Amino acid sequence: MALQFASRMDGLKGSAIRELLKIADKPDVISFAGGFPAPELFPVEGLEIVSKKVLEEDGRKALQYSSTEGFLPLREHISKLMEPQSLKADPDQILVTAGSQQGLDFCAKLFVNPGDVVITESPSYLGALNAFKAYEPKFVEVEMDEEGMLMDKLEEALKTNGNVKFIYTIPDFQNPTGRTMTIERRKKLVELANAYDVCVVEDNPYGSLRFEGEIHPAIKSFDTEDRVIYLGTMSKIFCPGMRIGWIYAAPAILNKFNLIKQGADLQCSTIAQRECAAFFDMYDINEHIKKIIDVYRRRRDVMVNAMKQYFPKNVSYTYPNGGLFLWVTLPEGMDSTDVFKKAMDKKVAFVAGEPFYPNGGNANHFRMNYSAMPDEKIIEGVKRLGEVLNELC
Amino acid sequence: MALQFASRMDGLKGSAIRELLKIADKPDVISFAGGFPAPELFPVEGLEIVSKKVLEEDGRKALQYSSTEGFLPLREHISKLMEPQSLKADPDQILVTAGSQQGLDFCAKLFVNPGDVVITESPSYLGALNAFKAYEPKFVEVEMDEEGMLMDKLEEALKTNGNVKFIYTIPDFQNPTGRTMTIERRKKLVELANAYDVCVVEDNPYGSLRFEGEIHPAIKSFDTEDRVIYLGTMSKIFCPGMRIGWIYAAPAILNKFNLIKQGADLQCSTIAQRECAAFFDMYDINEHIKKIIDVYRRRRDVMVNAMKQYFPKNVSYTYPNGGLFLWVTLPEGMDSTDVFKKAMDKKVAFVAGEPFYPNGGNANHFRMNYSAMPDEKIIEGVKRLGEVLNELC
Repeated sequence: MALQFASRMDGLKGSAIRELLKIADKPDVISFAGGFPAPELFPVEGLEIVSKKVLEEDGRKALQYSSTEGFLPLREHISKLMEPQSLKADPDQILVTAGSQQGLDFCAKLFVNPGDVVITESPSYLGALNAFKAYEPKFVEVEMDEEGMLMDKLEEALKTNGNVKFIYTIPDFQNPTGRTMTIERRKKLVELANAYDVCVVEDNPYGSLRFEGEIHPAIKSFDTEDRVIYLGTMSKIFCPGMRIGWIYAAPAILNKFNLIKQGADLQCSTIAQRECAAFFDMYDINEHIKKIIDVYRRRRDVMVNAMKQYFPKNVSYTYPNGGLFLWVTLPEGMDSTDVFKKAMDKKVAFVAGEPFYPNGGNANHFRMNYSAMPDEKIIEGVKRLGEVLNELC
Repeated sequence: MALQFASRMDGLKGSAIRELLKIADKPDVISFAGGFPAPELFPVEGLEIVSKKVLEEDGRKALQYSSTEGFLPLREHISKLMEPQSLKADPDQILVTAGSQQGLDFCAKLFVNPGDVVITESPSYLGALNAFKAYEPKFVEVEMDEEGMLMDKLEEALKTNGNVKFIYTIPDFQNPTGRTMTIERRKKLVELANAYDVCVVEDNPYGSLRFEGEIHPAIKSFDTEDRVIYLGTMSKIFCPGMRIGWIYAAPAILNKFNLIKQGADLQCSTIAQRECAAFFDMYDINEHIKKIIDVYRRRRDVMVNAMKQYFPKNVSYTYPNGGLFLWVTLPEGMDSTDVFKKAMDKKVAFVAGEPFYPNGGNANHFRMNYSAMPDEKIIEGVKRLGEVLNELC
């Protein structure tokens, strides 16, 4: 038969990362490719206790359908969790989603008609770009420096594009670059969004994983006109396998997300939400986050120190103050997929940079993850990668 | 600010059922409104055992990201689960989804451009209609009788509409009518789909919950040209709270669903999939299904017998051979929302019929659920409803 798919499927390709993970997932490969949190830090024992508790105390409710907006005690915990980012969220302004990935899909579904403009950082998170693409936007990229999106470039993009629906940004320890937007720029970004009457999608999976310095107030904390949509997730501070994230937004927007959620999958797992809430009742999540930070900070240092030792001098890289990733820049004209092929011969994997640019190009970059490998593998992997780079650069 | 949503949001309204459940959910209301399975049948003790097992044996993997297509041992169980419906599914042709609701959303996302035609039974499942609406189809309804969709009417619909993308059907114990499509019509439906080169979405949440007679072969079992997409779910035979369903389709279609799943939420809960698979390893799901059938069969009988006793003679209703619902027809010209208001005064709830018709009308019907209430409440609820009907009819 001749399958006639919708036109939105034309631009949809598999995530380079997800496809690559299948290759990189072999046990003998040292992989800096995924965005996996360190599994040895998952609170397995705590979850055993809470899952028993939830099933024993309220098992029949935990296995039944429940409300679309999500389990209220969990939404109360989520509200508290965002407080260090200077947010005071009414739990009624929170919708529980299947990870923040679902929030990304919903943002494009809510706002984007084919041809509408979405402004992104350049580069930006691949998974977001893939989610958005299903709604056929035009992507306008805004250049970054070490302090995040360049505000004059953002203003230019807003000025020269008529139908901008939202600005998409990952302000803290950005995926893929590891960069953080300064507080001044956060304020300026809200000003610009107000002036040009567009929404902001603030994707913040890593904000609380700060290794040094003060946690930055979320962009949403400067929102004076209810136009910032904040996306959060349990994936990096608790565990990704349960698929719990959230959207925090003003009622006029959140009500629409609720409708979208009803059509998309009715609700998130009742039992996962109750287990997550019970865990937050019984354990101090901030203590748990501190443990994660200590491990990731050390791994970042191990990786950066190994890069200093093994990488050629014409290869540069970012120095993230938190999160899971850093970003490597090769000399102009080089293609990181060439590096990737040779690295895979040496059983080392990373993600080539080009797919992070919505309109392509910029092949001389790649993303490195430092959260998922133990110290000695980070050193060994960077060493092997250094050999490849010294050969090619 | 002036929020500019995408045009797909124009037609999106809240599910009448989900909104209503908030009202009907009060403990003193006898509710025939939801589609809730009986919680007293949930295998809570079994789940306690398997959740402990999964966390103890493989906790770190269970809490980590995993593949988009789903946990292979679970897909193997799903394949076996479909065998009684004469299906032999390669586990590689199965994608695990967040309930079958997600499968419905994905079907429209994959096929429907604004204005494309989706053919549905008249009436059809409200949650499917809501999911499809986000992709702005034109709905063409096909009349049913007690044996399902009328095939001559279906052919007419195919003949007179150019851009039909798929035929949506719930062949077994249909929601909302409780009707089952005969085997002859299933074969005919595939013939027509072949002749007019359209896909079929077979939504089958209730097929194994048959109270009497033989389980019917799925429409997919007659599929000669890989054009039938089968949607299944654990919600009615296991529990809905874990949000596990699946799509079974040919590779050319399933690969596209995999891409959509990546963008939508990456994957289903790793731990829920492993728990579900472990439960199927340790327990006989068919024994469990038999227990559910015994209870629901009795409740159907209790409801139908009470209706015989208390409903006026000019009110008719279907007699389902399985599933969760039956369908009540009032005399022509009556509006079931009038009945609903008076019934709520007597603390009895059901779902008015009109929202089940994608193009509206047909207000003289309503849907009754018999799975979620104990016998004595069914009798008392139908009795009170009979009082309202005797007053109004």
